[in-house]
Amino acid sequence: MTQNTLDLDALLRPKSIAVVGASKNPDSPGHDYVQCLLDFGFKGEVYPVHRRETEILGLKAYPDLSSIPGDVEFVISCIPSEAILDVIDEAAKKGVRLMQLFTGRFSETGREEGAELEREVLRRARKGGVSLIGPNCMGLHDPEWGLAFRPDLPRRTGGAAFISQSGNNTTEVLIHSDVRGVGYRLALSYGNALDVTEAHLLEYLGEVSEVKVIGAYIEGVRDGRHFLRALSDAAASTPTIIFKGGRTGAGARSAVSHTAALAGSSNVWRGALRQAGAIEVRSQDELIDLLVAFELLAKPDGAIGRNVGAVGGGGGRAVQAADACTEEGLSVPSLTDGIRAQLKERAPQLWDWIGNPVDQSILAGGGVSGAAVLEMMLADPAFDLLIANVGEDWVLGRPDSADRLMHIVKRFAEIGKQSRKPIAFVLGPADSPDEARWRAVEGARTLLVDAGLAVFPTVERAAWALRRYVEYWEARA
Amino acid sequence: MTQNTLDLDALLRPKSIAVVGASKNPDSPGHDYVQCLLDFGFKGEVYPVHRRETEILGLKAYPDLSSIPGDVEFVISCIPSEAILDVIDEAAKKGVRLMQLFTGRFSETGREEGAELEREVLRRARKGGVSLIGPNCMGLHDPEWGLAFRPDLPRRTGGAAFISQSGNNTTEVLIHSDVRGVGYRLALSYGNALDVTEAHLLEYLGEVSEVKVIGAYIEGVRDGRHFLRALSDAAASTPTIIFKGGRTGAGARSAVSHTAALAGSSNVWRGALRQAGAIEVRSQDELIDLLVAFELLAKPDGAIGRNVGAVGGGGGRAVQAADACTEEGLSVPSLTDGIRAQLKERAPQLWDWIGNPVDQSILAGGGVSGAAVLEMMLADPAFDLLIANVGEDWVLGRPDSADRLMHIVKRFAEIGKQSRKPIAFVLGPADSPDEARWRAVEGARTLLVDAGLAVFPTVERAAWALRRYVEYWEARA
Repeated sequence: MTQNTLDLDALLRPKSIAVVGASKNPDSPGHDYVQCLLDFGFKGEVYPVHRRETEILGLKAYPDLSSIPGDVEFVISCIPSEAILDVIDEAAKKGVRLMQLFTGRFSETGREEGAELEREVLRRARKGGVSLIGPNCMGLHDPEWGLAFRPDLPRRTGGAAFISQSGNNTTEVLIHSDVRGVGYRLALSYGNALDVTEAHLLEYLGEVSEVKVIGAYIEGVRDGRHFLRALSDAAASTPTIIFKGGRTGAGARSAVSHTAALAGSSNVWRGALRQAGAIEVRSQDELIDLLVAFELLAKPDGAIGRNVGAVGGGGGRAVQAADACTEEGLSVPSLTDGIRAQLKERAPQLWDWIGNPVDQSILAGGGVSGAAVLEMMLADPAFDLLIANVGEDWVLGRPDSADRLMHIVKRFAEIGKQSRKPIAFVLGPADSPDEARWRAVEGARTLLVDAGLAVFPTVERAAWALRRYVEYWEARA
Repeated sequence: MTQNTLDLDALLRPKSIAVVGASKNPDSPGHDYVQCLLDFGFKGEVYPVHRRETEILGLKAYPDLSSIPGDVEFVISCIPSEAILDVIDEAAKKGVRLMQLFTGRFSETGREEGAELEREVLRRARKGGVSLIGPNCMGLHDPEWGLAFRPDLPRRTGGAAFISQSGNNTTEVLIHSDVRGVGYRLALSYGNALDVTEAHLLEYLGEVSEVKVIGAYIEGVRDGRHFLRALSDAAASTPTIIFKGGRTGAGARSAVSHTAALAGSSNVWRGALRQAGAIEVRSQDELIDLLVAFELLAKPDGAIGRNVGAVGGGGGRAVQAADACTEEGLSVPSLTDGIRAQLKERAPQLWDWIGNPVDQSILAGGGVSGAAVLEMMLADPAFDLLIANVGEDWVLGRPDSADRLMHIVKRFAEIGKQSRKPIAFVLGPADSPDEARWRAVEGARTLLVDAGLAVFPTVERAAWALRRYVEYWEARA
């Protein structure tokens, strides 16, 4: 069933769900799907379907869809592909509107019998009026609605949406963007895109008012025109970030055996994405950095300038910040006369030495902190964008380091919460086998994240993201 | 004193050290330097020098250098710059051969009196036969010799060397490369490079047989010809990675106020580095990735091919691995007939579907693991380089996830330890506020790192590093 926007709006937030292939075995997707509905607090009816079991995870189980007493709007299938056609027919008879097929081993196997079965799945579903997500997908993650596909997925809700042909990278993006503070209105692993495609999803997401940024991992599209129209429409209303898988010959070959996707030429893609107003990224790190930027940075009223003020960290970090920003096409102007005058007042020994970026290591005992200069920059119209380096590796070598670190980030968080200019905070990485260090850095990051601020693990990644952020608003001014 | 190689060899491993400006205050460098000599197990004599204290950290303290009964080869100065000239004269009289000046506020302040004092420091030192490291530096880190500048620096010894004009980034590189398994023969923050310069240090490090890879963060050089000669010599014997700070106008301006460095044009630098056979990087992450690659990847006998075999992770990761490698100019060939024949034997349901990269998610119950295919690739001359994705985010959603993860990495570690081909393992990032997840991922990484293996946080960074690694050996074949 080709979808229109209205359909998906209702379809993706069903009031009753059957899990066909539900299982008591905790090491199975049939267990995870049911467990998620319980754990994430799905408010509608949940019907596990299993041929023999009468109860699964405390819920009454049914031998088939037709035995379920109430309506079933949505079916999650995790049975093997051999039995899928019967279940689709049954679902059609039951009036099911949407099926999500974890079930795989179709065209992605590269075998003709798999491709033929997939074509038959689509024929039966269309005939029966059932829309399909997948096959070969993990499906919906909508924590507000109580839907998820793995019990360990984050509960954070928010303004991001992510659609992906890969289940694993949906998981990875959700987990690693959650620790950066990105909350989701919807994530969706849609696999082979047999019926509901990226084009339908982009059309839909561009119209959901809560969605502030859309990310998509796409290996191939079934209908290029539909895709470009949908992408242009989505990007017109919402920052839309595309991570294209299968940009190269080897990548495209790999994509065929993953989602049976026809990847298309890299150059054609690049041009088309640009023309549609989308932002192309080339790794999950870049994707996550832009989800962070577009969900969490302060929104400008219109176009935004490119002048960066940066504070924090030592002299090496100051130089790196200046280089990284300049190489991204941003400007790092000198401190203004107004700020110099304030510094002369407050830090008479240092006022002429301090520059932009501010080298935190020269400030000790000088009468002014990095945070204080950050506030001066926020108040000064000469600066459009700010970078605040926490400089945790220096702090963690001092006595009472955890307290000091919290003092710094609390001050930064207060400033950040009140700022109307975009501020990129730099902290990380937090990965350390030393528990005290891990606790200190994660504690600091959690504090910034809980304040709704955008945190980047390196100053280079902050500069890279700020550049894309500014470009987006420039193009729309 | 201009150094030659022989001099530095003896100078940098002194048998007796005085810390002028030693302090009982745990929040001071004068405390840290003494504490480090104790904590890191320096075996020679340690003399704290303080005007009034008679004992510091359990060691007898002396009012000045001349009161010390024995020889003093090396002086660490952390007194304010006002008193530095007298200490240099005293050191000269005492026969001190090398001084390390944490003491700052010289030419980097941009003030004429600072620059003049710095010139006078150099005149007095040369007159007195004392060589200088710094000023405005953190100095030596040589854990084998018992030298360090901060008590929390890693103890790991190894074949890496890092020299840097920035004290903070020396700390950052040491801490964040240590968790990746990089051990150091020497790290040195050398600040303003007034006397001992990057050129002397490169000359020296190129001749230290234990040094397998050299990294350098350089903001500016005092003698371009000397630098290029030293760099060419070092790079001829040892992979040499240069992170140039002050590549841009704003960066160069920032470098002046950090280490008084004259940064020089970016294009001139780029050409010169290439001609000298050095590898340029543009961030600490890139620097650390190459320290990992050149210290930990298996060394080829001569030139090395560009054919990559990759396993692990789901289908999205497989596509990303293929794209990243191809875009780095590496090849991702199809599986060979020999491997196909083995797969047909062991995994009759899957042999035609499995590709390179191997999508781990289709293997379950199929008779063959990702590790098994990795072994086939190692034995097959069609593959020169390997990438092994741990895929921890998938594993951590399963029951008994920590045990499963350890099972996978143990198997990978066994293979990696025996491999004569370079294998890049991909695991990470480990930064999570969830303690169980952090413990599991850090435990897995520690196991790989302890096996001496090269671990990268993303497949893109692994591919980027493998490309530079191959290029290095190609240029020398």
